[in-house]
Amino acid sequence: MHFVIQREHFVHSVQHVNKAVSSRTTIPILTGIKIEAASEGVTLTGSDSDISIESFIPSADEEREYVEIKKEGSIVLQARFFVDIVKKLPGNEIEIIVQDQFATTLRSGSVVFNLNGLDPEEYPHLPKLDENRTFSLPQNLLKDMIKQTVFAVSTQETRPVLTGVNLEGENGQLTCTATDSHRLAMRKAFMETNSADLELSNIVIPGKSLNELSKILEDTDELVEVVVTDSQVLFKFKYLLFFSRLLDGKYPVTKNMIPEQSKTQMEIPAKELLQSLERALLLSKEAKNNVINLKTLEGEVLEITSISSEVGKVTEKINCRSLEGEELRISFNGKNIIDALKVIDSEMVHIMFTGAMSPFILRPTDHDQMLHLFSPVRTY
Amino acid sequence: MHFVIQREHFVHSVQHVNKAVSSRTTIPILTGIKIEAASEGVTLTGSDSDISIESFIPSADEEREYVEIKKEGSIVLQARFFVDIVKKLPGNEIEIIVQDQFATTLRSGSVVFNLNGLDPEEYPHLPKLDENRTFSLPQNLLKDMIKQTVFAVSTQETRPVLTGVNLEGENGQLTCTATDSHRLAMRKAFMETNSADLELSNIVIPGKSLNELSKILEDTDELVEVVVTDSQVLFKFKYLLFFSRLLDGKYPVTKNMIPEQSKTQMEIPAKELLQSLERALLLSKEAKNNVINLKTLEGEVLEITSISSEVGKVTEKINCRSLEGEELRISFNGKNIIDALKVIDSEMVHIMFTGAMSPFILRPTDHDQMLHLFSPVRTY
Repeated sequence: MHFVIQREHFVHSVQHVNKAVSSRTTIPILTGIKIEAASEGVTLTGSDSDISIESFIPSADEEREYVEIKKEGSIVLQARFFVDIVKKLPGNEIEIIVQDQFATTLRSGSVVFNLNGLDPEEYPHLPKLDENRTFSLPQNLLKDMIKQTVFAVSTQETRPVLTGVNLEGENGQLTCTATDSHRLAMRKAFMETNSADLELSNIVIPGKSLNELSKILEDTDELVEVVVTDSQVLFKFKYLLFFSRLLDGKYPVTKNMIPEQSKTQMEIPAKELLQSLERALLLSKEAKNNVINLKTLEGEVLEITSISSEVGKVTEKINCRSLEGEELRISFNGKNIIDALKVIDSEMVHIMFTGAMSPFILRPTDHDQMLHLFSPVRTY
Repeated sequence: MHFVIQREHFVHSVQHVNKAVSSRTTIPILTGIKIEAASEGVTLTGSDSDISIESFIPSADEEREYVEIKKEGSIVLQARFFVDIVKKLPGNEIEIIVQDQFATTLRSGSVVFNLNGLDPEEYPHLPKLDENRTFSLPQNLLKDMIKQTVFAVSTQETRPVLTGVNLEGENGQLTCTATDSHRLAMRKAFMETNSADLELSNIVIPGKSLNELSKILEDTDELVEVVVTDSQVLFKFKYLLFFSRLLDGKYPVTKNMIPEQSKTQMEIPAKELLQSLERALLLSKEAKNNVINLKTLEGEVLEITSISSEVGKVTEKINCRSLEGEELRISFNGKNIIDALKVIDSEMVHIMFTGAMSPFILRPTDHDQMLHLFSPVRTY
């Protein structure tokens, strides 16, 4: 293998595929990044066997030449060093030559690195997916959907399926749901499909995969194509493929958890509520359980309180835009509400309660594509 | 105690004194910040007994009123919560009232915090220093001098005196020195003194104190007054006092460590040398000892190499501006040279070697107020 490549382009691709490489893998070859040079261009691959990322740098596009291929071939180089090395090389170009025994030379400016490579034949092949079930979403929308749900996945391995975000699709509508059984975050969006009757259910993508994918998604409305199979999902970009395995197991049916009626409902400015809960959390954090208390008062006013026996007490009042229904005193895990308020893209939020012992709903007032559900906490 | 204070001003002062508060103190009262209200203004104090910081907010200055004192008095409040609370309060003003049993009420906007205070009588008094030996420096110069020396202090407690920076003063010249016995950083500057014959020697300020002081120093040439006694140093700002204890013990005499002659000397662009060493360090880090090798070649060229048996090897060449004297091969801890190059404020550096087994000197080419000394590493 022997090629010369534009450094900036190469660094960008190497950083992308490196997101899939884990230093804690038990498979030694996966600590490396695979580099493959063919006449069309250079392909880089990184994988931790859960996530795999493949990035392609074409030899040239309409605008310019990126790679000069002198000899085709492939090599695997240790990711931990390789990423830092290419970032710190001084020239605009990098020349990479593989000699005998996988000995690899990198040249750039007056710098020469001689690196011990690994056998590319040992590197696992990426899965070939059946592309029957596919849909498309703008990159920025997918990024929002991840941000607005993934924080609510469970971090505990007792029910592995809850560590993922569940995708359901029907009638051109995609629904993402995450829950750790104390709170639930749901986000809907329209998806573009080739077949009008595409149905998706129980597609559970690990939260960790979505967090990595999110770092690659850009703030553009260019479409990303999503390919779904029974065990894998693939996100296809112009020059990048992002594979993730899916989680096994039946995702709980969440539809009927969501109360349809409410006894007390209110509209509140989101930012004011968030800041108030953050202050209250300063004390309830100390008590370890994050419990914050809410009480309705006369005149469309909410009272928020929290107590730490060691430190003290905080009490504050918020004016609601509207407050209707029964009087209410309720306690909840304030951290969970704060997490949700941070991802709600609305100035005003709607909260619907069905009594002090029932789950309650938080949603933006200006659209119905998002819903957050919370269990209250018993404090007596 | 009862006063109303401008929130922004108060937050700024609270954050300053909080730099001295340690959560790991064994003296419970020192986990708190002392607040004292008198007719002239409000004084805040934080201390971990090594460092103490006192900040004063005057009731008013020429421009405006900052504090309205309604009743004089004092209280100690737990720093950990207090700092976060005042930062997150919503109003422009904060009202603080101490009731019975040190119960303290904070009001701001529609928020009320009731905090359990501690007895201010238990809070230790700050030392009253004899102000015989004082000098002054611009804040930005002092900040530079700290940055350019403190990185070289020892982090090991085997010789406690080496964990500090030593101050010597004579004929209006101040010299700061730090060494961990493998490298030494020295920085000189002129100081303003009241008495022409002020002499300072063996004034060893803990590195940790200087790092905290550095965060308070601003990028201005306003003077800070330094008061030195046998056991304490005090940095006096307009509205802030920063006290640190001094380290006991005799600081080593470093003057005669510095070689006066050289056998090989060179001038190199600082940034190029830094980047080259950073690349070489990528591999020598792996070998744990950070060893980098330097060799002089024909034509005023330096060759920098490092090797990791596991990963590979790097070789690169740098063109010197000048290179004179004997041929040389030397090995050193590359991390130490990198640390020094990062704080040198000069485009070009001068390096003077006295053979492969002797300490060598690095200094800026454009002034003689700074010197770095390094021990070589034996590699055979």
